[in-house]
Amino acid sequence: MTSSNNVQVTVLGLGAMGSALAAALVQAGHPATVWNRSPGKAGELVAQGARAAATVGEAVKAGQVVIACLLDHASVHEVLDPLIDDLAGRTLINVTTTTPAQAREMAAWAAEAGIAYLDGGIMAIPHMIGQPGASILYSGSADVFDEYKPLLDLWATSTYFGEDAGLASLYDLALLSGMYVMWAGFLHGAAMVAPAGVTASQFATMAAPWLTAMTGGFQGLAAVIDGGDYTVEGQQSLEFSSLDDLVAASADQGISTEVIAMVQGLIQRQLDAGHGKEGVARMIESIKHPGH
Amino acid sequence: MTSSNNVQVTVLGLGAMGSALAAALVQAGHPATVWNRSPGKAGELVAQGARAAATVGEAVKAGQVVIACLLDHASVHEVLDPLIDDLAGRTLINVTTTTPAQAREMAAWAAEAGIAYLDGGIMAIPHMIGQPGASILYSGSADVFDEYKPLLDLWATSTYFGEDAGLASLYDLALLSGMYVMWAGFLHGAAMVAPAGVTASQFATMAAPWLTAMTGGFQGLAAVIDGGDYTVEGQQSLEFSSLDDLVAASADQGISTEVIAMVQGLIQRQLDAGHGKEGVARMIESIKHPGH
Repeated sequence: MTSSNNVQVTVLGLGAMGSALAAALVQAGHPATVWNRSPGKAGELVAQGARAAATVGEAVKAGQVVIACLLDHASVHEVLDPLIDDLAGRTLINVTTTTPAQAREMAAWAAEAGIAYLDGGIMAIPHMIGQPGASILYSGSADVFDEYKPLLDLWATSTYFGEDAGLASLYDLALLSGMYVMWAGFLHGAAMVAPAGVTASQFATMAAPWLTAMTGGFQGLAAVIDGGDYTVEGQQSLEFSSLDDLVAASADQGISTEVIAMVQGLIQRQLDAGHGKEGVARMIESIKHPGH
Repeated sequence: MTSSNNVQVTVLGLGAMGSALAAALVQAGHPATVWNRSPGKAGELVAQGARAAATVGEAVKAGQVVIACLLDHASVHEVLDPLIDDLAGRTLINVTTTTPAQAREMAAWAAEAGIAYLDGGIMAIPHMIGQPGASILYSGSADVFDEYKPLLDLWATSTYFGEDAGLASLYDLALLSGMYVMWAGFLHGAAMVAPAGVTASQFATMAAPWLTAMTGGFQGLAAVIDGGDYTVEGQQSLEFSSLDDLVAASADQGISTEVIAMVQGLIQRQLDAGHGKEGVARMIESIKHPGH
């Protein structure tokens, strides 16, 4: 068992997120080395006690644990491939956003080189790091997760999903999809009311508590999906869920209907297949079975 | 000023929502008459003290305030047009879901006939009526709203938007759009993780608090939109918001990409127009200006 506070940590990538991760480690008293491809990003961290490495090779050699928070999967290979021998015997925690397939590829690359590998998906924006509400998902080496959990917990609530390194990324992308789609829905609503002189801020004041309340419906939808019977009583039916009014009102306001028409299409395919009396949760079948 | 507790109330339409509205009135001690097009829906309400009218004409004549909670705009005309003379001098509160244009048409119809008219949009599912979190939006006659606010407050938090009868409906449809789009995003995420053996309920347990936290971003997006300058510092940029990974991972899971590709399309049109360095809030421009 490592005494977590003495762990020599290296953070590669000092964008807004990498800087927030590094700052949380420095503030907790970890000796931290930081590096960024383009210079001039380390000033504030150095003022707080971090050491800025001149080269990425120097940064990697300074760390027992190397944290990669880079632009994308290609950047990780570009930065780390030349250092594979230096990384052998160290631990790599990669929180760069990647696809599940890319995370699995990285895990295989690390295993081949004798690098202990944990993949992470960050469910937070930078200023949430170290604050309540931030969550980071992990998969890959259980040993790495267990050993460094006190360090990981400095950033966010840490959840481990299993040895398949792709799982955290899969959850991450699924949750991020939900976020981007929700944002599009919020912006569609704001665009609808704008011609009536309603500001986006006024709309946000109503939309945030409303959508928060409506997340309360997820478990009901999920129970129907997991139960495998879309005909159970007490649900909002697909035929009751016509979005014609929403599409018509959007068009009347002179805005694009593509956001709401996307949902209408999911519902319509189930109606066309004769499932109108079944629950609205059945929309998921249109997503699960493209072309049906 | 009416003594609100003695108001003779009539509720037309005893679907799940109409029944919930009527039950809240009966439980508060209002003399209530109820009617539904197809019979057999009033039993429970009558047991609680409501009177079931044999005909809609009888129901209308029994009420100082008539509440319409019917299937759609066409149903409201179908039910009320033959009774226009009986409605004259009474108050009509129409909480049937309609478009803003339909609400304005109904208000004009009522004004012509000497009927005081308030239009309502219900932001709740039936079991939320009378509970914290339920919200009903109103527009139309300020006098009706002021006089009957104690009655309306039995159902939900009541918010009045102005004399233009279409405003409540516009807000209603904008918020409902947000809800349906968010549901599609949740179901997309659930469909993504399903092939990895994750149940929809397991996913909902993570997605509900995550999306709730992410509604915290609405005010930031709104401030940028209302400020009219998408270049302000400190935002997530459009070029940082590539959804390529989300689309690729969805395709890898064998599910439809249409939900997330919709959002990608909004972002891509802004990137194509050269706005990559600007904030992600600029997505709203793709919605506000179809075809650009």
